[in-house]
Amino acid sequence: MEITLSELASVVGGRLDGPGDLVISAMAAIEDADEGQCTFLGHERYLSQLEKTGASAVILPEGVTCRVAAIRAENPYVAFLKALQAFAPKREDLFPPGIHPTAVLEADVELGEGVHVGAHAVVGPRCRLGDRVVIAASTVLLADVIVGDDSLVYPMVTVRENCEIGARVVLHAGAVVGSDGFGFVREEAAVHKIPQIGKVVLEDDVEIGANVCIDRATTGRTVIAAHAKIDNLVQIGHNVRIGERTAISAQTGISGSSSLGDDCVLGGQVGLADHVKIGNNVRLGGRSGVIGSISDGQTLSGYPARDHREWRRLNVHFSRLAQYADELKQLRRRLDALEGRDGGSTTENA
Amino acid sequence: MEITLSELASVVGGRLDGPGDLVISAMAAIEDADEGQCTFLGHERYLSQLEKTGASAVILPEGVTCRVAAIRAENPYVAFLKALQAFAPKREDLFPPGIHPTAVLEADVELGEGVHVGAHAVVGPRCRLGDRVVIAASTVLLADVIVGDDSLVYPMVTVRENCEIGARVVLHAGAVVGSDGFGFVREEAAVHKIPQIGKVVLEDDVEIGANVCIDRATTGRTVIAAHAKIDNLVQIGHNVRIGERTAISAQTGISGSSSLGDDCVLGGQVGLADHVKIGNNVRLGGRSGVIGSISDGQTLSGYPARDHREWRRLNVHFSRLAQYADELKQLRRRLDALEGRDGGSTTENA
Amino acid sequence: MEITLSELASVVGGRLDGPGDLVISAMAAIEDADEGQCTFLGHERYLSQLEKTGASAVILPEGVTCRVAAIRAENPYVAFLKALQAFAPKREDLFPPGIHPTAVLEADVELGEGVHVGAHAVVGPRCRLGDRVVIAASTVLLADVIVGDDSLVYPMVTVRENCEIGARVVLHAGAVVGSDGFGFVREEAAVHKIPQIGKVVLEDDVEIGANVCIDRATTGRTVIAAHAKIDNLVQIGHNVRIGERTAISAQTGISGSSSLGDDCVLGGQVGLADHVKIGNNVRLGGRSGVIGSISDGQTLSGYPARDHREWRRLNVHFSRLAQYADELKQLRRRLDALEGRDGGSTTENA
Repeated sequence: MEITLSELASVVGGRLDGPGDLVISAMAAIEDADEGQCTFLGHERYLSQLEKTGASAVILPEGVTCRVAAIRAENPYVAFLKALQAFAPKREDLFPPGIHPTAVLEADVELGEGVHVGAHAVVGPRCRLGDRVVIAASTVLLADVIVGDDSLVYPMVTVRENCEIGARVVLHAGAVVGSDGFGFVREEAAVHKIPQIGKVVLEDDVEIGANVCIDRATTGRTVIAAHAKIDNLVQIGHNVRIGERTAISAQTGISGSSSLGDDCVLGGQVGLADHVKIGNNVRLGGRSGVIGSISDGQTLSGYPARDHREWRRLNVHFSRLAQYADELKQLRRRLDALEGRDGGSTTENA
Repeated sequence: MEITLSELASVVGGRLDGPGDLVISAMAAIEDADEGQCTFLGHERYLSQLEKTGASAVILPEGVTCRVAAIRAENPYVAFLKALQAFAPKREDLFPPGIHPTAVLEADVELGEGVHVGAHAVVGPRCRLGDRVVIAASTVLLADVIVGDDSLVYPMVTVRENCEIGARVVLHAGAVVGSDGFGFVREEAAVHKIPQIGKVVLEDDVEIGANVCIDRATTGRTVIAAHAKIDNLVQIGHNVRIGERTAISAQTGISGSSSLGDDCVLGGQVGLADHVKIGNNVRLGGRSGVIGSISDGQTLSGYPARDHREWRRLNVHFSRLAQYADELKQLRRRLDALEGRDGGSTTENA
Repeated sequence: MEITLSELASVVGGRLDGPGDLVISAMAAIEDADEGQCTFLGHERYLSQLEKTGASAVILPEGVTCRVAAIRAENPYVAFLKALQAFAPKREDLFPPGIHPTAVLEADVELGEGVHVGAHAVVGPRCRLGDRVVIAASTVLLADVIVGDDSLVYPMVTVRENCEIGARVVLHAGAVVGSDGFGFVREEAAVHKIPQIGKVVLEDDVEIGANVCIDRATTGRTVIAAHAKIDNLVQIGHNVRIGERTAISAQTGISGSSSLGDDCVLGGQVGLADHVKIGNNVRLGGRSGVIGSISDGQTLSGYPARDHREWRRLNVHFSRLAQYADELKQLRRRLDALEGRDGGSTTENA
């Protein structure tokens, strides 16, 4: 794709400050940008990178000196995002409306307008797909699945029976929605499966990463609330509820029947025990492990998770343990001397 | 699905204590249940929830007062499980016997009676499927795979060549059985792959979660023994053996050539180093990391894993490290005073 | 497969020391080997296992006494690898050249010679596949994907648009290459997606494990350099660079914009924060968590990661915390006595 600098200035709502016919072929980060590419100055601390950038054009605020062509914008980052959208491939180019001849639509499927169903995709009986839904190649929806308008389901996704997907949801490749919750009852040498007959509900504007697993509820619903964003390889157990706008980084696991409030942010590789209640606006550092409930607005880290600053302080002390052990020994020797002993205590603590 | 209370009482083997013609449309947890739904009283500690439940009927023991319709049962939880089974969709409705016209069966496949092979599934040459096996849509078995009677393979599963799956096994969506073990040999700047020519054997009644990976053995077999249950996103390395009835929670990783005995229970996000031998009846807390072998009957937690109670005690001490460091400083000052010093030691420990 | 001992000696370049017509049907580890199988003596410490092995033949150095048939080789391990290769199924048997009639090749696909495209595989518009490439059953390449000569893509893999795969690359089942990076901007109650318009480049001789996720760059490239080997269920964030010959064990996560140098070795379940720079020849112990950059040649463990030996020492001190706390109490009491107090300090530290 190619666009002139004046077109780009118009797209991002900035002021052209350079040759309007300069051709821009890509957007790039300031340290990577090459000739023919446009970048942006995200913060004044990158001014030194601005001087040496290979970019042919830069989006930056008024008043900042710049040796290459510029687009002046109040918020260069927001302008950059608009430029990225302009350069992004159009969904309808990648997934044009239409049902591929190899796709299988089972009985009583309802399709909205402008739906794409890709090659070898399978849409189970009684599924209902809203307008402009994309079901990419080789994805499978089992029976009675509902998908809202403008949702995009990448290849190799499995949505099990009866699950409900809202509007403008994105499901990345390999995600599994509605697998059985992990529930078994031991009875002497036998292991009985607890039937998992609930469902999964993904509300509007949810995004689910690649190879994520979301288990259906035993009874009732596992819910991912509106605008929640879940990164790759995350595990969501049965009967979990994830609040609105909560973001969960990769490889985190939420055990069964736990809940996260709204606007939480979880780092990567976090683990939550089962039946844990997390409030709103909670932040959990990467790799933290939560075994108890957390009230609104807390920031925790470590395992077991505790206040983030406290955890940092305790880690400093942990790193001094050899020194503390040494001091203990010195204090004991000095006490021995004061008490008139001559090392008798060394046998106490080998 | 709808069922009358008297039918339900009969299904779960309980005594009807209410209007037999009451229509029940779903089972639900006591705190979620709505009108038309039936729940159960799992323990006396939920008596307060019983009072405010929205359920129209409750399964509970004789003698417990209840303001709504009841089914009286000696073990309400077991009765509830039977009720769940009654409400669960029938496997043959979701996956009716028959080979979908788009399914591909390669040469010399042997099929038992009542087999389901779903749309776009691929069954490789010389595979043998037992009676009533389900191979759901878009699943692939490569060459020479054996699947025992009544096993259920959900969509998007890959079973690599020569692997063996027992009877009544469940493989959830996206699972990979028989991928290559991770083995390479460095030789200066070259990296040579160690051919992985063994197989994976899943014994009878095993359940494998969504997006689980089980590597084939380098030579010989990776074995998941009968009745073992493995949750989503677990990694099983090459030449591992998992014992009978052992349960492994989500996102746990078992490195190559390690073994777990029978009846073990592993929490989520546990890690085992390679060549570790775990005995029978071992319990590993969530997120524990095991770097050495463990004898029968132990309960361990933490990383490196140690006795669970010991780990809890040490965590209490960890949380007091700032206090201990402070006490050390005070003791040093008091000793300095006793010895007639006046702070000279503060330069010792900055 | 069956081969005579004299043929096997010739294949591995060893000296026959036993009956040349002995039939070998499999290779096996020394502790597992049965009649008709051949094993190897990897190290003198396994001499006791050599005595009781059930193998019919052993590859071992000259001079070592052996009660069964032998192949004498300077480096028995290398000879064993050659034998494994001889017994491994041939790629062209599992994936014979040819396009399966159910495969979908979109417009303007370019195919090299001897390509295999399996049943229900989908090759997107303008993809270019080199000679002898294998695209196994049910795998999907979206638009404009390039795959170099002799690469092997197992079933159920998704490669998103515009990604580039080098020569002799192996992609195991369920891997996702080119999923969107996890990038969102909060703006009050709205959550805006940052378009991810870069790509993923896998250089020559890379191997990617089952169900691995590799996110495309926001702009530019996520790069896995030549000969890097990545185990199952690993997460690679957007704009990451993994150096040549670096090996990453299962379930590790590399956050966005971090980089690893050449020849690094990472254990399982490791986590790297974002924007971390790791040098060459760095080793990270299993489960280590890295939050800062690391220079060449270091070996780190723990979380936060620190020098491996230091981490081991600190863990020894951690295991003694109860003892240290006890000593502190004793010292305090002795000081109290020396100072003439009688327990007044116990109120200080409850």
